[in-house]
Amino acid sequence: MQRIGVLTSGGDASGMNSCIRAVVRKAIYHGIEVIGIKRGYSGFIEAEMYPMNLGSVADIIHRGGTILHTARSERFKTKEGRALAMENVQRFGIQGLVVIGGDGSFTGASIFHQEYGIPVICVPGTIDNDIAGTDYTIGFDTAVNNVVDAINKIRDTATSHERTFVIEVMGRGSGNIALAAGLAGGAESILIPEIPFNVQDICHKLLSGLKRGKLHSIILVAEGAASGLEIGKQIKELTGLDTKVTILGHLQRGGIPTAFDRTLAARLGAKAVELLKDGETNKMVGIKSGEIVATDLTEVIGQPKSIDKEMYELAKILSI
Amino acid sequence: MQRIGVLTSGGDASGMNSCIRAVVRKAIYHGIEVIGIKRGYSGFIEAEMYPMNLGSVADIIHRGGTILHTARSERFKTKEGRALAMENVQRFGIQGLVVIGGDGSFTGASIFHQEYGIPVICVPGTIDNDIAGTDYTIGFDTAVNNVVDAINKIRDTATSHERTFVIEVMGRGSGNIALAAGLAGGAESILIPEIPFNVQDICHKLLSGLKRGKLHSIILVAEGAASGLEIGKQIKELTGLDTKVTILGHLQRGGIPTAFDRTLAARLGAKAVELLKDGETNKMVGIKSGEIVATDLTEVIGQPKSIDKEMYELAKILSI
Amino acid sequence: MQRIGVLTSGGDASGMNSCIRAVVRKAIYHGIEVIGIKRGYSGFIEAEMYPMNLGSVADIIHRGGTILHTARSERFKTKEGRALAMENVQRFGIQGLVVIGGDGSFTGASIFHQEYGIPVICVPGTIDNDIAGTDYTIGFDTAVNNVVDAINKIRDTATSHERTFVIEVMGRGSGNIALAAGLAGGAESILIPEIPFNVQDICHKLLSGLKRGKLHSIILVAEGAASGLEIGKQIKELTGLDTKVTILGHLQRGGIPTAFDRTLAARLGAKAVELLKDGETNKMVGIKSGEIVATDLTEVIGQPKSIDKEMYELAKILSI
Amino acid sequence: MQRIGVLTSGGDASGMNSCIRAVVRKAIYHGIEVIGIKRGYSGFIEAEMYPMNLGSVADIIHRGGTILHTARSERFKTKEGRALAMENVQRFGIQGLVVIGGDGSFTGASIFHQEYGIPVICVPGTIDNDIAGTDYTIGFDTAVNNVVDAINKIRDTATSHERTFVIEVMGRGSGNIALAAGLAGGAESILIPEIPFNVQDICHKLLSGLKRGKLHSIILVAEGAASGLEIGKQIKELTGLDTKVTILGHLQRGGIPTAFDRTLAARLGAKAVELLKDGETNKMVGIKSGEIVATDLTEVIGQPKSIDKEMYELAKILSI
Repeated sequence: MQRIGVLTSGGDASGMNSCIRAVVRKAIYHGIEVIGIKRGYSGFIEAEMYPMNLGSVADIIHRGGTILHTARSERFKTKEGRALAMENVQRFGIQGLVVIGGDGSFTGASIFHQEYGIPVICVPGTIDNDIAGTDYTIGFDTAVNNVVDAINKIRDTATSHERTFVIEVMGRGSGNIALAAGLAGGAESILIPEIPFNVQDICHKLLSGLKRGKLHSIILVAEGAASGLEIGKQIKELTGLDTKVTILGHLQRGGIPTAFDRTLAARLGAKAVELLKDGETNKMVGIKSGEIVATDLTEVIGQPKSIDKEMYELAKILSI
Repeated sequence: MQRIGVLTSGGDASGMNSCIRAVVRKAIYHGIEVIGIKRGYSGFIEAEMYPMNLGSVADIIHRGGTILHTARSERFKTKEGRALAMENVQRFGIQGLVVIGGDGSFTGASIFHQEYGIPVICVPGTIDNDIAGTDYTIGFDTAVNNVVDAINKIRDTATSHERTFVIEVMGRGSGNIALAAGLAGGAESILIPEIPFNVQDICHKLLSGLKRGKLHSIILVAEGAASGLEIGKQIKELTGLDTKVTILGHLQRGGIPTAFDRTLAARLGAKAVELLKDGETNKMVGIKSGEIVATDLTEVIGQPKSIDKEMYELAKILSI
Repeated sequence: MQRIGVLTSGGDASGMNSCIRAVVRKAIYHGIEVIGIKRGYSGFIEAEMYPMNLGSVADIIHRGGTILHTARSERFKTKEGRALAMENVQRFGIQGLVVIGGDGSFTGASIFHQEYGIPVICVPGTIDNDIAGTDYTIGFDTAVNNVVDAINKIRDTATSHERTFVIEVMGRGSGNIALAAGLAGGAESILIPEIPFNVQDICHKLLSGLKRGKLHSIILVAEGAASGLEIGKQIKELTGLDTKVTILGHLQRGGIPTAFDRTLAARLGAKAVELLKDGETNKMVGIKSGEIVATDLTEVIGQPKSIDKEMYELAKILSI
Repeated sequence: MQRIGVLTSGGDASGMNSCIRAVVRKAIYHGIEVIGIKRGYSGFIEAEMYPMNLGSVADIIHRGGTILHTARSERFKTKEGRALAMENVQRFGIQGLVVIGGDGSFTGASIFHQEYGIPVICVPGTIDNDIAGTDYTIGFDTAVNNVVDAINKIRDTATSHERTFVIEVMGRGSGNIALAAGLAGGAESILIPEIPFNVQDICHKLLSGLKRGKLHSIILVAEGAASGLEIGKQIKELTGLDTKVTILGHLQRGGIPTAFDRTLAARLGAKAVELLKDGETNKMVGIKSGEIVATDLTEVIGQPKSIDKEMYELAKILSI
């Protein structure tokens, strides 16, 4: 292995820069050259590629987003698109590929590997923490802390008013962010796509909390479970309580990465280089029970990852 | 003046605690006792009142919200309500009143003063910065920094995608938060109630920015100017650009107060006590051109406060 | 088990409040009453104790420090002191004890259990992450993020100058904070008590970095490894480089707890109550490989916990 | 005026990037070209200069430090150095110069103007707020908030222990940061170079506070007034109290600029361009009583700026 490529794909996640830095420096440490591929598979097809050195990744560890930029590419889903990417693999002399992204990005990497035999190692970078084969994905801890920071601010002001606050957070298919932030933020109710809920139950809990002297309630809604605005409207109608809605949107994604995300990203990126160096391919690196491990992509792609029921139950008990 | 009361009323604002602390400690320094009145005029009517000492305001300077809590009171708008409050004035031996709040709270204070002759000094505490007679209100700087922090996070992630971000911020009648945060955050467009706008112009600017290589655009919308969701929908329809919407809601209000808000609040609170001690009444303390000044309530209540047009023009020039 | 006591002891750690909240609410959920013991073993001896209810732990999840306060108690190290504490156990009808703290606090708990047979469950709360039997202690993640935040700020400004920055962080006997923050913060050198170092090697690395165009260097020093001021002085003498020193001190301890610390604290606190309920004693709850586990105190107290050598090597490779 | 140069000089200050952005965009708006000069007067002498366009200042508004870098230049203090700079003025066709920095940088600008007649407009960018002719300098508000954030963290943890905390902050010749942060942070004592102090008085205040039940005390020391370590040692000796010292150092300088600093910087930068366009020279732009004004450099350079005594007195009264 003398030269590898690295790209970030799909939605960006805070900590990706730490991962890129680790890939570049670990590779150079082992005498391997690195080609940065910009804007995910789009740049791979269009040859937006450049050699990276130690300085290319200086002073990026604390930046949100990704210096390689990211994009979703429809063309890479076609044979023609991948053929163009393969031309760039040859043109730039790339012998292995590190793909940082989510499930869709891994699918592309896997097909590309099958078609052209080029070794690929995937790294889970997505705020949703919805990838099988790893306990945590890069960007999840930062996203959760962003939501918790929003809850902090709302909580400070909320103690002054008898009010209900609904906060809509990211998570189309997964309630992981809502659950983790709800537990850490002390939310009264957490609505996630994995678990059916009933607005009347929530209202009942709200009202009995009020009776006991609770000054306010915070309800976290994963976007995949319901619309925050809709839930707010229903609560208002059913209880008559003044209900305020916040939709956090993309502010969850960005911001300075937490120490946890940076360290996880560094470990995963370094491991990806090691695997390529050792002749491995078609694997995703992940963290399981605190250990950095590699899992075959076939056991990762399209596999469901269930939420932590113990956490959900704990959140319920602690928010009484 | 041997004993004064202090209350916070209307929407809470970060920095109110620093103001309460200043009122209490300045008063005690001058040998004046302080009665804390909880939940604004509601607690005034219902005698939720207690003597405050130096320790009552220890370790509150860095807390958002208000330790005295706040509420909106319909009863204080009635003669009966105010009569009950006057009974509590007599019962607790209060000889002067500090009211921290916004325009509505000042109106109540002014009527109460007219009816019963009790000296009142008002302090502008509202995140909207929409009070005449002062350049800044308590809570405005914190709210603006909260919005700017949200823009920071969105900006970090935004550079990775060609996208338009719409952020809806507070301001029903006033575009001050949107304008200040938009200028400081480098927003491409700022929609405020004071200045007519046209979605087609915004789209035109978006598209010409894109052509010049701008990777993303951030549009700030004061809730009084338009609905963020609606603007997002229109932009998407008119341009075809992927447009994401964030509604910040109450997270703007809270959080740890900035140094600016704490200092302003401390100076205003201390001045309010001085005015009461000097026999003044029916005045609002404020900051004008860096100086702490007192303005007659008649020149404050119901008076419009125009936005800073120079700022608006500067924001436009700098976001080209 | 009808009534338990809970106390925090030793140095405070961010997240302790989340743990107290979990102990109280989990206990009440199981019909167990909770007595809060203030100021650690001091308050235990002096009967600074009060019944806690659901409301006692409302709105504390996001506060640094501990609402129960903490102290180091010399008297509890004596038979007489512990006898007085035992009187309070009987007086308040306490049947089990949750002790949140570090190694010294656990020793006290263990002796108390041996002498009087009262069940004790310990929870590791200390920023140093130096307790055997758990991968993480409460407060460590927040402390690391506090240090990383300081590095962020210094890094932003540092790129403007050719300068060396020395940051002294906590850790008398353990380099865990320095190592984790150094890896996450991208420090050029990390000096910890566990690994011998040589200032000349550091200077050599500094100078060769400078030659390669590195604009600045950040050196993290655990207080147990050396004095930051001393290291700064030596580097200046050996290299002639302008070297600036920051001593973070107690700002590492406090601040709003991270989501990680709150969740860990909640899980550990809840588990402690479960163990007491199940008749267990003389155990510490901890997290090992992602699982909440209980370890006998004899395997915890006084046991060394080695640093993660893999992390240290990774940090070295990535900072070339 | 067809082409101007811009540089940042001296210590960097958060918000400088917002100022550079304003200079560049305001100039381009008026059809004026901009040459960026790197590393202050050093780059001016060594022709580290490049043309800037709208994109050169994209996505920098929220970054600490300065994208133009900064340095202190001994050569520019010599006739020879300035002659070389003048050669670059001619070579790059520069007709006016914007210098962002402090007193030393202004002196250089003034001499350069006298010698070669090239118009110069200065902008006050220094965290110390020690420049005459302006109420605030760029970077001061961010530095104060950085210190206040440190106090927040220490305060949270401090309430758990009976302890004294000494925090050494920047300010060799000026106590402005210590004073502003001490007032906003609620410090018990503030030691600044402008006002004589006595450690025995401080100890007396500490001990009487303790007697009244104060759980902790925070003492802010400007580096120009005393050494934090020395003050900590003396307090410990005189009172026997456990005293902890934090030296904030360069973390005060950096970090994401506050809204206040960005807005101030933008307004000052835009005004500087206007003045050059209008044929002005040898002036500093500043903010006085909320208005952007221009002051002759002769009234700025070397002029003392006294601290705000009212603030100092208020801080004393509020910390009783």
